[in-house]
Amino acid sequence: MTREQIDSRIERLVAQYCTMHDDAASAARATDPASRVTDLVASQAVASSRGGKRLRAKLLLQAFASARGDESRFPAARDIACALEIFQTAALVHDDIIDDSDLRRGAPSAHRALSDALGSRAQGDGLAIMLGDLLATASVDVMHEAARLAPHSDAIVEAFLRMHRAVEIGQVMDVAVETLPLADHERLAECAERTYRWKTASYTTVAPLLLGLLCAGADPDAAKAAATAIGEPLGIAFQINDDLIDVIGTSASTGKPVGGDIREGKRTLLLADALQGADDATRRALIAAYSDSHESARDVARITEAFRTSGAVDRSRERIETLWHATCTALDEHCAALGISGAEKDGLARQCALFVPGIG
Amino acid sequence: MTREQIDSRIERLVAQYCTMHDDAASAARATDPASRVTDLVASQAVASSRGGKRLRAKLLLQAFASARGDESRFPAARDIACALEIFQTAALVHDDIIDDSDLRRGAPSAHRALSDALGSRAQGDGLAIMLGDLLATASVDVMHEAARLAPHSDAIVEAFLRMHRAVEIGQVMDVAVETLPLADHERLAECAERTYRWKTASYTTVAPLLLGLLCAGADPDAAKAAATAIGEPLGIAFQINDDLIDVIGTSASTGKPVGGDIREGKRTLLLADALQGADDATRRALIAAYSDSHESARDVARITEAFRTSGAVDRSRERIETLWHATCTALDEHCAALGISGAEKDGLARQCALFVPGIG
Repeated sequence: MTREQIDSRIERLVAQYCTMHDDAASAARATDPASRVTDLVASQAVASSRGGKRLRAKLLLQAFASARGDESRFPAARDIACALEIFQTAALVHDDIIDDSDLRRGAPSAHRALSDALGSRAQGDGLAIMLGDLLATASVDVMHEAARLAPHSDAIVEAFLRMHRAVEIGQVMDVAVETLPLADHERLAECAERTYRWKTASYTTVAPLLLGLLCAGADPDAAKAAATAIGEPLGIAFQINDDLIDVIGTSASTGKPVGGDIREGKRTLLLADALQGADDATRRALIAAYSDSHESARDVARITEAFRTSGAVDRSRERIETLWHATCTALDEHCAALGISGAEKDGLARQCALFVPGIG
Repeated sequence: MTREQIDSRIERLVAQYCTMHDDAASAARATDPASRVTDLVASQAVASSRGGKRLRAKLLLQAFASARGDESRFPAARDIACALEIFQTAALVHDDIIDDSDLRRGAPSAHRALSDALGSRAQGDGLAIMLGDLLATASVDVMHEAARLAPHSDAIVEAFLRMHRAVEIGQVMDVAVETLPLADHERLAECAERTYRWKTASYTTVAPLLLGLLCAGADPDAAKAAATAIGEPLGIAFQINDDLIDVIGTSASTGKPVGGDIREGKRTLLLADALQGADDATRRALIAAYSDSHESARDVARITEAFRTSGAVDRSRERIETLWHATCTALDEHCAALGISGAEKDGLARQCALFVPGIG
């Protein structure tokens, strides 16, 4: 399935599940000035759903194909892949409110777009909370409808809801990390990595692998073991790579402002490694910059430089390599257990490698 | 089932579904300073779940009992009733952020409590968004687990998710109503009533009736028709009554500050009726007060007086009576269709009457 095909299916599902089809409401709409706002939210649901790379959907579909899922199950796998992407959009809409991010996927974030359209920050933020809720509900709806057509439908629903919960708890951990003392960089590194497992690996790699395998009819226990072993290191590597790109990438490639994490004062693994590797003066400067809640205190260029000179950038690259190696080992072991070999295994490995570009 | 029994089951379910049971995480927790924040959110999940009147859970259980649900299905009905209450808490947590309400069920609202505990408004609000998401996911989880033990499990899941969506769309409509011109009070009344149907009746009365009947094994189409006909007018009457209490009640009885809707400038049906019935001078004064975004412009005592003298308070009481009459007519018709009669029908009617105290 191409990215365009996934995009158009997502657009259709979002339009369907983020509005209420109701005759009385439709009849009243034409004459209802309040419908401007409900229409605005419905269009924003579609707009916010656009522009993703669909890496997660593609990983799910590749896992399904590699485990030789039956063609008759393909519509279920396809719609669960879309549900995963819709869930991601829901999470990003709320995440952008929490981080007060202006830009997402190269366009204004949902709360910013809604605030601008209504000329009210309070109303825009409020509607964006609801938009995230609507998209989260839509993701469960789409998944549930599709799971009825799949084998192991209860295991699929359970895995999907478990993923919801993991990401939500991971987001809480993300705030928790912000409250840690910077002086204890080992603890910081440990907590940051754990947060990546919950808030990123859970839905980026583990759930796509698990859901794809389940749709193909794989044994639920074997599928869970494989998805965790292959997906956890891969998802953490993906997040570390994402942090790196924020520092050494370009806005054109990310759709977000470069250095956004630094301006936000985000406690990344990269920061923990920089605190660990820096000389005393640089460490003190970093602690001072990150202890101040004002972003003007954080000079992006100087901090980027400190990330490089402290060896943190190299350390992140090493971490990514080690994690990727763990994924490869797990691929060998668990593909054998699941009876996935040859071209099917290579296809899955290639799809995994896309999460850590320049490595695989 | 008593309120206390429902409370303790909800507490257990929330504690179970708003944390992630994970050995690695548990082992790490004891030494993890970040766990203060994750623990805080978990306790707030429990705290925010407390203090509800459980009217919705009881209506669901009464519908189940009246339709002579089999004892073996009771655990399913009980947990779906709890799921409904957990969903309400999720909705209230987000609603309080949107309205920036300080008080809920006589205690600090979730975002206020979390902000105070962390000494940061931004972090507290962010965590409360996540807390609402976690509770919403928990509600679906609990419902899904229970639905497996019930007849018509697909219809139950569908009804529950439809209710999620209705409330979310209703909340969007709630913001939409705020953007309407006050001069057109007929339109305002129409939109406010429609909003009540979506954001209140959907989960307060329609879903409890439908889910209770489905758990008892009633025919899905008949159950849906009955729940809509009985529940829609009842839920709208409940919201109108709630608006009235905000104006003529006491803080002790509501757990919220009296006149909160007025201070927030909320576009209620009561306001629409006041604009309709007031003399020209009062109408102009009301429009001026509600057009100003500053709550200091709204003199609660004077506006309450205008609500009385314009006849709006009486009009609301009339509306409640008319709606209650519709509910009674629907009870007669649909109980007959569902084979509910005698003590079972009386029990259901009594439970419905609790939503409009002083009327039934």
